[in-house]
Amino acid sequence: MKKEVRIVIDTIGGDNGAEVCVNGAIEGLKQHPEVHIILTGHEEEINKYLEGKEYDKNRLEIINTTEEISLNEPPVKAVREKKDSSLVVGMNQVKEGKADAFISAGCSGAILAGGTFIIGRSKGVKRAPLAPLLPTTKTPALLIDCGANVDAKPEVLVQFAQIGSIYMQKICGVKNPRVAIVNIGLEEEKGNALVKSTYPLLKACKSINFIGSIESREIPNGKADVILTEAFVGNVILKLYEGLAKMLLGEIKGAIMSSLKSKIGGLFIKSSLKGLKSRFSASEYGGAPLLGLNGLVVKIHGNSKEGEVISAIRQCLTFVDQDVNGLIAKGLADEVAEESLEASANAAE
Amino acid sequence: MKKEVRIVIDTIGGDNGAEVCVNGAIEGLKQHPEVHIILTGHEEEINKYLEGKEYDKNRLEIINTTEEISLNEPPVKAVREKKDSSLVVGMNQVKEGKADAFISAGCSGAILAGGTFIIGRSKGVKRAPLAPLLPTTKTPALLIDCGANVDAKPEVLVQFAQIGSIYMQKICGVKNPRVAIVNIGLEEEKGNALVKSTYPLLKACKSINFIGSIESREIPNGKADVILTEAFVGNVILKLYEGLAKMLLGEIKGAIMSSLKSKIGGLFIKSSLKGLKSRFSASEYGGAPLLGLNGLVVKIHGNSKEGEVISAIRQCLTFVDQDVNGLIAKGLADEVAEESLEASANAAE
Repeated sequence: MKKEVRIVIDTIGGDNGAEVCVNGAIEGLKQHPEVHIILTGHEEEINKYLEGKEYDKNRLEIINTTEEISLNEPPVKAVREKKDSSLVVGMNQVKEGKADAFISAGCSGAILAGGTFIIGRSKGVKRAPLAPLLPTTKTPALLIDCGANVDAKPEVLVQFAQIGSIYMQKICGVKNPRVAIVNIGLEEEKGNALVKSTYPLLKACKSINFIGSIESREIPNGKADVILTEAFVGNVILKLYEGLAKMLLGEIKGAIMSSLKSKIGGLFIKSSLKGLKSRFSASEYGGAPLLGLNGLVVKIHGNSKEGEVISAIRQCLTFVDQDVNGLIAKGLADEVAEESLEASANAAE
Repeated sequence: MKKEVRIVIDTIGGDNGAEVCVNGAIEGLKQHPEVHIILTGHEEEINKYLEGKEYDKNRLEIINTTEEISLNEPPVKAVREKKDSSLVVGMNQVKEGKADAFISAGCSGAILAGGTFIIGRSKGVKRAPLAPLLPTTKTPALLIDCGANVDAKPEVLVQFAQIGSIYMQKICGVKNPRVAIVNIGLEEEKGNALVKSTYPLLKACKSINFIGSIESREIPNGKADVILTEAFVGNVILKLYEGLAKMLLGEIKGAIMSSLKSKIGGLFIKSSLKGLKSRFSASEYGGAPLLGLNGLVVKIHGNSKEGEVISAIRQCLTFVDQDVNGLIAKGLADEVAEESLEASANAAE
């Protein structure tokens, strides 16, 4: 039998309340016999949704918490002060080794702050990036970083490129992943101050397959496997991807419903369009991992439904199985070792 | 009869060569009797495409130019040195009052550099923003700035908000246009350093209707009329909009073509989808104006076809008719006057 994997699910903070978390947990337990789930949040409410459902009671536990972190409070302060919130209690489970992974649909800022201040970064990791997968016409691409590291430094971006490459190689099985930096033109001299100072560092970085700049219009075409950018731009790309895909698919539905003739046509293409919609739906890809920590943290979308929770559980199993954070820590350490070896060799010459 | 409007079309630099410019010019002449077109570029090539076509020869002239500005050269240097390029010669026509407007599908950098250094900014304008309209589920929104002003200062962004408001009010007929700044969250304390320092200035600016932050996922829903952002992020938004819409519409086509059943369904919804496609096509909205100059400059997409050229001609007529740059200059001057009046009033108190 496989090793037990213990996953905390934060039931507070998502737009759809505790119900989707509870239902996702029950389904996760059914699908994966090695999973043990810990739900943090309001015990009474959780029990209400568990009532009458069938699940293995030995593999599900509840930790009652009394505080809530809201979207409107400064995240670092909230994480420091609200010790009995579902997020802080859940992350402490990971910190203390009582759980392997933490899943939340709560406020990004608090998840990022908690990941860094409670669980902590792996040795050698400068900042922890939030890195979701984006659908493309080819294989999905990793967008790194969409987190809270706004106004990042060039060295941090280079490390994100390394972390993203390790992730795509080890978790997604992409050989020699192509890394590109988001830019407003393809030429090396293009860009803002940050891109201009990061570009030569990426070019010089031997451990990644840097293919140069990428304009955002090429992202959906799968031109790169690791889409590198600082968090502000990453956040804009991620949310525009979601918003525009949702809007366009909605408009298409509207176009189909606009006449009797097109309604009939719509019936014929329904199943083909459904496949497309699911490719662009968040539930397909699970959540965005916060990488480079001493434990797994997966941020799922605020409006996640049961499907996203189930995908995130599956994702955590892969992460534990592949030891993603261990690989990142090791990968970065190897590079440092190689660099210093090279430096000594150069010094000796 | 309406006053003659003289428009230069730069036939060099677009992906589809001089042919689309020539065809667009001929169609523009047909549709608008008040238009006079000046084509700059290789006379021999232009004549090749004009041959056998019917048009009013008194309203079309050619200025032969011998140099070309390529994508790979630094734009400011190119504009300064290549005096006999189609772009520089064309812009000089505007500068010297021999033409009212300049249209080009050439390199953005060179168009922006030429706009500033050859035609020049209107009095009071700190930087000239490139501001295309984006399709939304409601009325189109103005994305300002997508130009070359990367790493912009907060004061410049505030002026872009004012310029964008004047544009939406006077040209697009939007009353009290809602201005929002692109951000990674809705709360005032969210954002990178630039957004955080610009936000309070926008709040204090009386001449605009500032509604706060906008997350990129809300842009397609028409939540704001003026989408304010610095040029790097603006460029990313614009190109992702294009790339993602193109990709999604392509995937839908693929889904329809995937089976006989869905192919039949596709025939029924063809006309409805066509309407949607045209709403998202660049040709519908014409080009992006470079605002705040002493003359009109419209940048059309590099891969523009005849339709975009025709739309850009129509757009120039509206701009001339409404005196967009005059209104911007006047609007900004009025504000300065009002502010200094207020300042003196305050000082007198």
